[in-house]
Amino acid sequence: MAQGAIGIDVGGTKIAIGFVDAQGAIISRRHFATEVKSGPQLITDKIAQAVKQLIGESSGRVEGIGVGMAGQIDSSGQVHFAPNLQWREYPFARVLSDLTGQPVFVTNDVKAAAWGEWLFGAGRGHRDLVCLFVGTGVGGSIISSGKMLEGMTNCAGELGHMVIDLNGPKCHCGGYGCLESLAGGWAIARMGQEWAVKDRHQAKMLLELSQADVTKIDAVIISLAAQKQDPLAMQILSDVSNALIAGVTSIVNGLNPSCVILGGGFIEGNHALIQKIDDGVRARALPMAVRDLKIEKAALGNDAGLIGAASYVLNRG
Amino acid sequence: MAQGAIGIDVGGTKIAIGFVDAQGAIISRRHFATEVKSGPQLITDKIAQAVKQLIGESSGRVEGIGVGMAGQIDSSGQVHFAPNLQWREYPFARVLSDLTGQPVFVTNDVKAAAWGEWLFGAGRGHRDLVCLFVGTGVGGSIISSGKMLEGMTNCAGELGHMVIDLNGPKCHCGGYGCLESLAGGWAIARMGQEWAVKDRHQAKMLLELSQADVTKIDAVIISLAAQKQDPLAMQILSDVSNALIAGVTSIVNGLNPSCVILGGGFIEGNHALIQKIDDGVRARALPMAVRDLKIEKAALGNDAGLIGAASYVLNRG
Repeated sequence: MAQGAIGIDVGGTKIAIGFVDAQGAIISRRHFATEVKSGPQLITDKIAQAVKQLIGESSGRVEGIGVGMAGQIDSSGQVHFAPNLQWREYPFARVLSDLTGQPVFVTNDVKAAAWGEWLFGAGRGHRDLVCLFVGTGVGGSIISSGKMLEGMTNCAGELGHMVIDLNGPKCHCGGYGCLESLAGGWAIARMGQEWAVKDRHQAKMLLELSQADVTKIDAVIISLAAQKQDPLAMQILSDVSNALIAGVTSIVNGLNPSCVILGGGFIEGNHALIQKIDDGVRARALPMAVRDLKIEKAALGNDAGLIGAASYVLNRG
Repeated sequence: MAQGAIGIDVGGTKIAIGFVDAQGAIISRRHFATEVKSGPQLITDKIAQAVKQLIGESSGRVEGIGVGMAGQIDSSGQVHFAPNLQWREYPFARVLSDLTGQPVFVTNDVKAAAWGEWLFGAGRGHRDLVCLFVGTGVGGSIISSGKMLEGMTNCAGELGHMVIDLNGPKCHCGGYGCLESLAGGWAIARMGQEWAVKDRHQAKMLLELSQADVTKIDAVIISLAAQKQDPLAMQILSDVSNALIAGVTSIVNGLNPSCVILGGGFIEGNHALIQKIDDGVRARALPMAVRDLKIEKAALGNDAGLIGAASYVLNRG
């Protein structure tokens, strides 16, 4: 009878639930759309129902439930704030545990994905590992000497808010020149939009691709324009890769990991970008820190959060 | 019979050796000038002699010898490179152990000072602690969940080489825009010297204080000029404090410590600077990371390395 755990990835648009075995394989799965308006209680009911179905169907012993979701969550599984779901001060772990009879562990979505990559993905076997996920925002997680860092209030790993340009633009977090403010999807969109307002001529292709709606210019459109050799889009993406080189250099010099995993929507499809970051970091970081360093693409894709949340349960001491 | 250890701080100009008890107090001590030219073997002989005298005089049981020194040292105590002493590939721990009959542990001077501050100084009781020492260079050390981070090749904590200005000046390490290249003593000197060459009028006071010798302009002269309200010197030091605010913000956001200790020659005498960094970090870093954060001045001064090297021995598990 295989041992396993339930992994749940609670996103703002979709909730994915799976039964994951001890080797990190998803044996069975469910998913449904997130109806944010129905509120935390109804969403939790629906999750509990799906969990009970999956457990009923499985022949394995279930060790518990792991949940990954964006937001500020404390170690008791209390959700202080989940912006995508508009949950505030919701005791998610306790409610889901009461409904299912299983122990429930809730963690940040980025930390869950890092658990997945560490145990079953591109970081397997590394004891000193940093994951950096670049999507709309930029998040990270640090594993050092075989332990994931938590910090004082469980928010260690906010690597998107390292300052890499002390004279840089304002970030969503309130700071200035954070890595996220120069490489996150929202920041890339902002750069394109600012150019379109400032110089319609230079931003011609961006405006064409967005059907002249400045607010529609985003990272996808800018990537598309760059593929068509648009000089402005290429310049923006070159600045983004320089920002990522600076951020990864800081990580490598400060933390001396044996592996850096790069993931998230903006990175995973772009092999040339990973190579450019690898080259740039090796040219700039401390020789002793890069000598045996590996820079790898995340391996688990969209399933990293689900697998990671389950593996967190399977591997807690 | 009190338990204790020998702590040794091997610097480029002075070597200090002390018998340190389990409460971190220096019970007895010796020091002598470092004669770099005499080479590693003679220096080690002289250290061994002093160690034996201290042990002979002490009534306590000696647990071993801890050494802190600048350079690249591996966990076996092999010194790969110590720039101040011009030692290369010297098996310091083994030689000193053979001469004294004691177990010997050699670590980086910054790590040793961090051990001292953590166990007996400003960081006492913190499980998540970062030390940042600002002198000629900028070094650091990270303690997370009650463990000092080592990283893959024992060089975790090189926080002076986090990139805080991706368009910034070249650093001694080969990178660009590192914290050290904007806040280390050598970088402050470079800024003053560059101004003196570029604009003799603006740099009038710096040139006066250096008796018109541009190469003599250093961080001490610039600090002196700033105290005399020289606008250029004040601007340079304002830029330095902004660099330190950016660096500490990166540390606080990325690692979420409960305490940051600021030490080193440039910081310890300057209470206004620590207050400015504290204010700046609280205004810029993530609210969740600064809520219960303490930013403290290092407490052990010049003895941090000696006490720390000994306490490393007393506390190794």
